[in-house]
Amino acid sequence: MDIKNFKVEELENLCGDIRTRIIEVVSRNGGHLSSNMGAVELTVAMHYVFDVAKDPFIFDVSHQSYAHKLLTDRWDRFDTLRQTDGISGYTKPSESPYDYFVAGHSSTSISLAVGAAKAIRLKGEEGMRIPIALIGDGAMSAGMVYEALNELGDRKYPVVIILNDNEMSISKPIGAISKYLSQAMAGQFYQKIKRRVERLLDYLPESATYMAKRFEESFKLITPGMLFEELGLEYIGPVNGHNLHALISALKTAKKLKKPVIIHTQTVKGKGYVKAEGRFEKWHGVAPFDVESGEPILTKMLNKSATALFSEALFDLAKKYENVVGVTAAMPSGTGMDKLIKELPDRFWDVAIAEQHAVTSMCAMAKEGFKPFVAIYSTFLQRAYDQIIHDACLMNLNVAFAIDRAGIVGEDGETHQGAFDISYLNAIPNITLFAPRDDVGMKHAVDFAYTNKGVCAFRYPRGSFILCKKAKSKPFSLGIGEILRKGKSNIAFVGYGNGVGKAYKCAELLDEDITIVDLRFIKPLDKKLLKTLAATCKMWYVFSDSAKRGGVGEILSGFLSEQKIDGINIESFEYEDDFIQHGDNLKIEEKLGISVEKIVKKIIKIKS
Amino acid sequence: MDIKNFKVEELENLCGDIRTRIIEVVSRNGGHLSSNMGAVELTVAMHYVFDVAKDPFIFDVSHQSYAHKLLTDRWDRFDTLRQTDGISGYTKPSESPYDYFVAGHSSTSISLAVGAAKAIRLKGEEGMRIPIALIGDGAMSAGMVYEALNELGDRKYPVVIILNDNEMSISKPIGAISKYLSQAMAGQFYQKIKRRVERLLDYLPESATYMAKRFEESFKLITPGMLFEELGLEYIGPVNGHNLHALISALKTAKKLKKPVIIHTQTVKGKGYVKAEGRFEKWHGVAPFDVESGEPILTKMLNKSATALFSEALFDLAKKYENVVGVTAAMPSGTGMDKLIKELPDRFWDVAIAEQHAVTSMCAMAKEGFKPFVAIYSTFLQRAYDQIIHDACLMNLNVAFAIDRAGIVGEDGETHQGAFDISYLNAIPNITLFAPRDDVGMKHAVDFAYTNKGVCAFRYPRGSFILCKKAKSKPFSLGIGEILRKGKSNIAFVGYGNGVGKAYKCAELLDEDITIVDLRFIKPLDKKLLKTLAATCKMWYVFSDSAKRGGVGEILSGFLSEQKIDGINIESFEYEDDFIQHGDNLKIEEKLGISVEKIVKKIIKIKS
Repeated sequence: MDIKNFKVEELENLCGDIRTRIIEVVSRNGGHLSSNMGAVELTVAMHYVFDVAKDPFIFDVSHQSYAHKLLTDRWDRFDTLRQTDGISGYTKPSESPYDYFVAGHSSTSISLAVGAAKAIRLKGEEGMRIPIALIGDGAMSAGMVYEALNELGDRKYPVVIILNDNEMSISKPIGAISKYLSQAMAGQFYQKIKRRVERLLDYLPESATYMAKRFEESFKLITPGMLFEELGLEYIGPVNGHNLHALISALKTAKKLKKPVIIHTQTVKGKGYVKAEGRFEKWHGVAPFDVESGEPILTKMLNKSATALFSEALFDLAKKYENVVGVTAAMPSGTGMDKLIKELPDRFWDVAIAEQHAVTSMCAMAKEGFKPFVAIYSTFLQRAYDQIIHDACLMNLNVAFAIDRAGIVGEDGETHQGAFDISYLNAIPNITLFAPRDDVGMKHAVDFAYTNKGVCAFRYPRGSFILCKKAKSKPFSLGIGEILRKGKSNIAFVGYGNGVGKAYKCAELLDEDITIVDLRFIKPLDKKLLKTLAATCKMWYVFSDSAKRGGVGEILSGFLSEQKIDGINIESFEYEDDFIQHGDNLKIEEKLGISVEKIVKKIIKIKS
Repeated sequence: MDIKNFKVEELENLCGDIRTRIIEVVSRNGGHLSSNMGAVELTVAMHYVFDVAKDPFIFDVSHQSYAHKLLTDRWDRFDTLRQTDGISGYTKPSESPYDYFVAGHSSTSISLAVGAAKAIRLKGEEGMRIPIALIGDGAMSAGMVYEALNELGDRKYPVVIILNDNEMSISKPIGAISKYLSQAMAGQFYQKIKRRVERLLDYLPESATYMAKRFEESFKLITPGMLFEELGLEYIGPVNGHNLHALISALKTAKKLKKPVIIHTQTVKGKGYVKAEGRFEKWHGVAPFDVESGEPILTKMLNKSATALFSEALFDLAKKYENVVGVTAAMPSGTGMDKLIKELPDRFWDVAIAEQHAVTSMCAMAKEGFKPFVAIYSTFLQRAYDQIIHDACLMNLNVAFAIDRAGIVGEDGETHQGAFDISYLNAIPNITLFAPRDDVGMKHAVDFAYTNKGVCAFRYPRGSFILCKKAKSKPFSLGIGEILRKGKSNIAFVGYGNGVGKAYKCAELLDEDITIVDLRFIKPLDKKLLKTLAATCKMWYVFSDSAKRGGVGEILSGFLSEQKIDGINIESFEYEDDFIQHGDNLKIEEKLGISVEKIVKKIIKIKS
């Protein structure tokens, strides 16, 4: 949409239309509501002042990019938001040439802007193109941002950073930087003082001119942007992020500076939808809801989510044992840690988006005799990979990793899939890897994690377990799997975690007397069980919500090879070596050929 | 050593003795010289003011912990420094109860201090114990530090952070934060201005008292510690880090504050050894040297190091193609990027210790049409795991990762081993993994990386390749391996990277007509070659400098299983599932049972 010749009034109307469209679609499809409603004017001003066709528009996390999508040829298609084969909830270059970069994990935008600025300089395009990064205050807690600012402030590439400050992050704002930003917002006070001092200095004798100059410089330093100015950035702000006049003026100034500039804007999350305005976590990511009442349109969930079960189990454990502590990295309700933080605020913490720090700080607590539970999504735990190796496993500390969102995560899509944790953790010495298969199993998993000596990690899916009724889980015992059903045929279904439920579902549809195994542990493996199994079943089908490469099937092949056990045919229904797109879980599994129906068909075909 | 009752003069003498001992041992064994010489007074003051038996002493990276080791029961044993079964070059709790935590990777100390402080509070030991972190200015560039400061500045746990500022990092200081620190060091200027302003204010009328108070506050803000004060920390400094009086006084003050405090100290790297004083990178990590002349005692290295070969090859490539760019994260000479940064400063960068930012910023350059080479050690690349997945592989950008120090790295030991890169990278979609086996191969690897579309990574060892003369490498072709020697026996030696040379060496000692294969690519595998091989050789021995779990052997097992190829016996000589200790490479391999001799013995035993 070409809005370059719009009057401000027309731009304001456009903002209204964008908001209407966002509410319309998000209330139907679910999605990120508050952040998008809050960033409408920011986005419109970006498109007005800069040129999306040539300037890199970099959206941090990019969950706030809906307005940008609507402004770049996706207005009509927008009602497919987050649906299978539809518009992604995040920027995605394969979807549109106007999406500069993929994002779904936080705090990458300034690094990308620095890289783009280096490229622009090398190409001799400085003055013609400039990178613009839009980043929320919540993303400012992750270390990556400072790594990027450290280079940017030194080399001074022209880059415009719009800091969208709504004091809200995903949940409530945490940490010194948030506090600093709120103080900065009260910057008017300093401005007033500054003017009074300047007037005062006018009365001083001529000889004080030098002094006056020094004062100016000093006062420049105590404007709200000090922190950023010390890091070598120009600072403009605070700017009302819903005032198009002010925003456009600030952006135009920034564009002209030919330096790194941070524009500190203040917005209200949910702006324009009364039910959501200023509300915290509730309206960040939402399920379909009724626009009138603001109430969610409930899709029947028969069983509790694995997250809720984890939360309950950990709360029970924490009440029983005083040395149980825990941490989340900005996902309190997403991981179920919110309840524990509320009830036991001395022992459970949200450390903001800071996975590296979350892990390493808990390692020190383990060293001191505590038993930390680190609850992080599979995909975000990738951020703390080195810390798991270097700070947890090297000393084999008593740390438990609760890996939420393991497997396909649905509408969030490719940046959020929990596919790789088995592969990347299995290579690390000293770690124990296991997984519950059902509701009862989650309780046992938490209990086992507590008693386990050394590092352990257990994974569980988004939503609820498939298996809830059959063969209820027994307590975990290190390295012991379970044969759930002993069949007479040559076939074994070998499941791990939520894969066991799927194995059951498939077995039900097959006219065959199949052995069903729950591995329970992928590290260490139950060697005895597997050897017994190898003696009777020669065809193993593997069920697990994980990538094939380095996944359960490969681990089993490796085991058989190591044990010199020959003649076992392994067929794994894990994920192929590809990134998995967004959409309804079942539809995605269908597309990947690993839905229950598709698997059953494959098995029948193999048998025949 | 109990130094609590020492007089300052005695402490000063002790510092002299410590320096003598450090020079004595490091000149013989090699090790970190400058950083240890610079931190002697800091360490002695820490031990004097705090109680190492109860206060957590946390050394960042811990390469500067020699004085601490000498003060804690390791004076005599110290001459085994970095030797097999000897004293580690880093803190190591399994070596001494006075080593609080393992460290070898940078910037974990503040997170550990926060965790320890939380534990201390929960145990009700506040006032009795306090964590002390010693961190260099170089480590301040990594994002993890800010994640930790963000929590610390908000929750205000009592923690003492000693910032050891020698403006040197490992190479030269980089980034806005370094600049900020140097300005802070010039803080005397501000102090003077402040005093003059205060005198000036004395002459103003009574009504200006309020104004005066505001001025005071303003000036408090422009003392050198502003950046840290804004983050919620108390700041003391700058302090001369070689003046024991000043240091002890600062530490005592900090201890009393019961708040998070940062003490900004200035030291001279190499202090006390004239040849090294103030010198940059050269004296950071050193090989054995002659104390008199300062010249290294050369152990004959017949062949060029893989790093040097990489550096030359990349330089040739960069001269030929203008779109070649590259980055190192604070290891310019370690990765051989120093030459390129010097010769082509517009296209090659050192971004300081900031692996996450290094990777993601280069991804944006790839998006802009450049071909970035990201040269990072295998062990440090773990820090950028999420960025490789989320920012490089998801969009399948043309980024090449040059993975130095793959395999056993010798004296640095367990924190630095390059064991896991194959396992953690292989799981990621879109990545191509390959490895040169010899000097010529390195040139081909760099050339192939240039032409390859999408993400690729190639690994190579510390030091020189084993294989240099036999069967010189041909150019790489995607997914094509090479049968180097076709034998008549049932046995195949399957090598990858530097493993190929080892396979040759073993084959030479065996009285057997062995087939030797260089896989060249581990992703994608050369399926055709492997199928042919499987048809003739049933016993595969695998040679690769990598962990077994998720390593080459397991990948081959997985492939055979997937292809339903039965009857192949795989025996891998990769690393078992354990962290590998420090020491001479050959001795360590001997201990692990994977030296050439040990392998040959094993093979003979298997055959019989």
